[in-house]
Amino acid sequence: MVHYPHRHLLGIKGLTPPDIELLLDRADEAVKISRQREKKTTTLRGLTQINLFFEASTRTQSSFELAGKRLGADVMNMSVGNSSVKKGETLIDTAMTLNAMRPDVLVVRHSSAGAVALLAQKVSCSVINAGDGAHEHPTQALLDALTIRRIKGRLSGITVAICGDVLHSRVARSNILLLNTMGARVRVIAPATLLPSGIADMSVEVFRSMEEGLKGADVVMMLRLQRERMAGSFVPSVREYFHYYGLDADKLKHAKPDALVMHPGPMNRGVEIASDIADGPQSVIEQQVEMGVAVRMAVMETLLVSANQGERA
Amino acid sequence: MVHYPHRHLLGIKGLTPPDIELLLDRADEAVKISRQREKKTTTLRGLTQINLFFEASTRTQSSFELAGKRLGADVMNMSVGNSSVKKGETLIDTAMTLNAMRPDVLVVRHSSAGAVALLAQKVSCSVINAGDGAHEHPTQALLDALTIRRIKGRLSGITVAICGDVLHSRVARSNILLLNTMGARVRVIAPATLLPSGIADMSVEVFRSMEEGLKGADVVMMLRLQRERMAGSFVPSVREYFHYYGLDADKLKHAKPDALVMHPGPMNRGVEIASDIADGPQSVIEQQVEMGVAVRMAVMETLLVSANQGERA
Amino acid sequence: MVHYPHRHLLGIKGLTPPDIELLLDRADEAVKISRQREKKTTTLRGLTQINLFFEASTRTQSSFELAGKRLGADVMNMSVGNSSVKKGETLIDTAMTLNAMRPDVLVVRHSSAGAVALLAQKVSCSVINAGDGAHEHPTQALLDALTIRRIKGRLSGITVAICGDVLHSRVARSNILLLNTMGARVRVIAPATLLPSGIADMSVEVFRSMEEGLKGADVVMMLRLQRERMAGSFVPSVREYFHYYGLDADKLKHAKPDALVMHPGPMNRGVEIASDIADGPQSVIEQQVEMGVAVRMAVMETLLVSANQGERA
Repeated sequence: MVHYPHRHLLGIKGLTPPDIELLLDRADEAVKISRQREKKTTTLRGLTQINLFFEASTRTQSSFELAGKRLGADVMNMSVGNSSVKKGETLIDTAMTLNAMRPDVLVVRHSSAGAVALLAQKVSCSVINAGDGAHEHPTQALLDALTIRRIKGRLSGITVAICGDVLHSRVARSNILLLNTMGARVRVIAPATLLPSGIADMSVEVFRSMEEGLKGADVVMMLRLQRERMAGSFVPSVREYFHYYGLDADKLKHAKPDALVMHPGPMNRGVEIASDIADGPQSVIEQQVEMGVAVRMAVMETLLVSANQGERA
Repeated sequence: MVHYPHRHLLGIKGLTPPDIELLLDRADEAVKISRQREKKTTTLRGLTQINLFFEASTRTQSSFELAGKRLGADVMNMSVGNSSVKKGETLIDTAMTLNAMRPDVLVVRHSSAGAVALLAQKVSCSVINAGDGAHEHPTQALLDALTIRRIKGRLSGITVAICGDVLHSRVARSNILLLNTMGARVRVIAPATLLPSGIADMSVEVFRSMEEGLKGADVVMMLRLQRERMAGSFVPSVREYFHYYGLDADKLKHAKPDALVMHPGPMNRGVEIASDIADGPQSVIEQQVEMGVAVRMAVMETLLVSANQGERA
Repeated sequence: MVHYPHRHLLGIKGLTPPDIELLLDRADEAVKISRQREKKTTTLRGLTQINLFFEASTRTQSSFELAGKRLGADVMNMSVGNSSVKKGETLIDTAMTLNAMRPDVLVVRHSSAGAVALLAQKVSCSVINAGDGAHEHPTQALLDALTIRRIKGRLSGITVAICGDVLHSRVARSNILLLNTMGARVRVIAPATLLPSGIADMSVEVFRSMEEGLKGADVVMMLRLQRERMAGSFVPSVREYFHYYGLDADKLKHAKPDALVMHPGPMNRGVEIASDIADGPQSVIEQQVEMGVAVRMAVMETLLVSANQGERA
C-alpha cells in the first residue's frame, strides 16, 4: 500500500500531487462498489464515524453517511441544532466530548474558517473538513477533480473557468488549490464585488466577462450565489446577476464545444445557471454527486486504514 | 417466485387483486421476523434505502426505518427541514441528487398530491409513496387490509365503515381503492363539509349519520380530524364534532358486536374517538402499527428483489 | 451468569449493592470493547433499540446510540420535536405505538419526573431512563461511580462533595442514591435557594460554603447551573455564583490533593467551573464521557440478555 502521510483532511492546501492521485485512484475503485447491487464492504467494520455538522447540509452529510455505511462503519449524525451548543457548550468541549466516545473519524462542517483545524488539534481521531466558512471544502474539490479526470483523462493542462460568487466560496478556494497543484489552468470569472481580496495571490487568471473568461475553457464550473451570506453587504439583483453571470446557451458557446458544465449544488436555477444548461448534454452535475460518495469513501479508507498501519499503530 | 410487475408503489390505484394478495402474503411472513428475538434478515444486505420526508411523521418514518433495518438494508433519513430545500432547491433536484448516490429505494412523503409520482419518473431506483397530500398512502391501506384479513380471514364481502374527515384523508382514499379492489363493501360516514367532491365516483355508500352508517359494519375505521389542514376553511368545533362523529360506546353498538375498531394514528382522543373505545377490546389500533412494519418489509422486499430478478436485472 | 432481577432501569432507587456492582463490572469489560480498533460485538444483533428523547441531548443520546451500535443492535432515534407529539398525541400513545413496532429497549428522556416510569408500565420491552425532569438520571450516576471506582479502587468510604445547583439536578439525586447505597460519604454544597426541600431526608451532609464542604473530599462533583430551568424563580448572577460556588484553584485546594474533579457536562466554563480546573490534571471529565458509553453498553446487555434468559423467556 502506498503511504499516505496525513492523519486528517483539513484542506487541499498541503496535499502533494501524489497524495491527490492516490485519493482519486482509490475513488475510482470506490465508484465500482456503489454501482454493484450489494454496495457494501467490511473495510471499516466496527469503526465509528461521527458527522458533526454545525451548518445543515443535505448533500454533504448524506454523502458522507452513505460513504461510511458502504464501508461498513457505524455512522452517527450529530444534529447540532438540537444540542449542547445551545446550552452554551464551546466547540472544543463538544469535540472533546465526542472524542472521548472514541470515534475513528469526525466529519465536521462549521461556519467559521479554521474551526475544523482547531478542533483537529484537540482530538485523537482523524478529522475531515466538510466545509469551514469561506475557507476550504476539500472533498468537493476532490470530487470535482475526479469527475473531470474520468471524462477528460487528466487534470494537467485542462483549462477550468470558475464562475460567480468566488468571494463566499470555499468550493472555489479548494478547487483553485487542487487544480493548481495538479497543473490545470485556472480562470476565475466574477464581478469585482464577488472576488476575495487575496485573489491576486492565487495563481489564477481573473476575468470580469463570461464571454472572455469562457473562451477555450474545457470545464465551466459554476458557483452558487450565496445570497444568505450577504446580509448587510452588496446583494446583487437576481435578474441582473443572471444577465451578466448566469450560464446560458449563449455564454456557454464561448467555451470549447465539449466543455463540461459543473455545479456543486444546490442550484439556484435561473440565477447562476439556466435550467436547460443544468439539464443539458454538457452537464455533469449528477456525476459530481455520484463521485462525491466515492471520494468520501476513498478519503475515509485512506485516512483510517493507512493511519492505522502507519504512525498511529 | 410469483411475478410482481411494478417497480414503484405510488398508490393502490393500478394494483390488481393478485398484486395485493402477494404483498399481504409476504407481510404475513414478515410479521414472524419481527416477533423473533433476532429480528433481522439479510434480504436487502448492502442495499440503500433513503427516507425522504418533506412532512414530518413519527410513525410512518419509524416504521419504514425499522422495516429496512430488519431486512439488512442501509437506511438513511433525510431531515428535509434542515436541508437544501431551504436553500431554494427544487423537489426534482433534491431527488436527482439523492438518485445519483445510487439508492435502491426512496421512501417519500410530500405535502402535494402527485409529487411522489413526479419524482418517480425522474429517478432510476424504486420509489414508495409514504403519503402525498390528500392523494394516496398505500402502505397504510395495505397494513389496514392485513390487520382485517388476519382477524376476519378475508377482505371480500366485509363491510367497512370509514368515518370522519374523508376530505383531507389520503388514508381514506387508499383504503377505499384497496377495499373495493378486494371485494369489500365500503361505506363512508362524514358531514357534507368533510367529503371530497369526487366521492360519488368512488363506489362507496355515503352516510351522514354514524348510527345508520355503522349498522352491521364488520370494521369501523376512524380518521384523524386534520384541523391543521383546515386553515381558512370550515373548522368544526371539537365538541360538536365528537357529539356527531366521535366514536363512543353508544355509536359503536350499531356496528356488529365483533366489529373491529381501527385508527391510523396519531389519535385525537375525545375528538374522533373516545378513550375507552380506543383502549377497548374491539380496538386493533396497536396491531395496525405492528402490521405496518410487516407490510413495509413486504413491499420493499417485493420491489427490490423481484425488480432485480425481472426487468431491471 | 449472575442473576439481575430488573427488566427496566428507571432509577438508582431500588438497586442493591450487588446490582450496581454487576453493572459496573460489566462496564469494565465494555470499556475494553470501545478501546479496540474494531469496537463491535454481536451481543444484541437483530435487537431493536429506540431512543425516544422528548428533550434534546447531544451527549446522552449519542452515548446510547454508540453503545447500542457497538453491541450490534439496530438503533433508531426518534426526533420528537418533529413528531406526532406536535399533532397532539399523548406520551402514552407515542409509547404504545413504538411498543407495537416490537423494540427490545426504549431509552427515554422526558422533562417530567415520573414520565419514564409511567411509560414503562405500558410497554412490553425494557425501558431505560435517560433523565426524567429533576427526578433521576441513573446511567449518569453509574458512569460517575465507574469513573471513581476505576481510579480510587472502591466507592465505600470515599467522600464525595456534590456542588452547585442541586435543586434542578437529577444527576445529583441519582448520584446521592447510588453513593449512599455503596457506602460512600456524600456531602452537598449549595446555596439555600438551590437545595431541594427534601434534602434533609437524603442522608447527606449539607454545606453552604465550598471551603468547608470540600475539606478532605476525595471527589469534587460539580453540577451544571441550569439557568434555563429557573424561569420565573431566583436566577443567580453568573459572576456572584462563580465567586461563591464556582470551582477554581483556590477552592479546590481545600479538597484532598488527589481529589478528582468531575462534571456531567455540558459545562458552563467560568460559571460553575474555572477553565484551568476543567482542563487540569485532577479533571476526569473526559473519562466520564468514555465511561458513559461503557455503562450504557453494560446496562443494555444486562437488561436484554438476562431479561431474555429470565422471566421474559
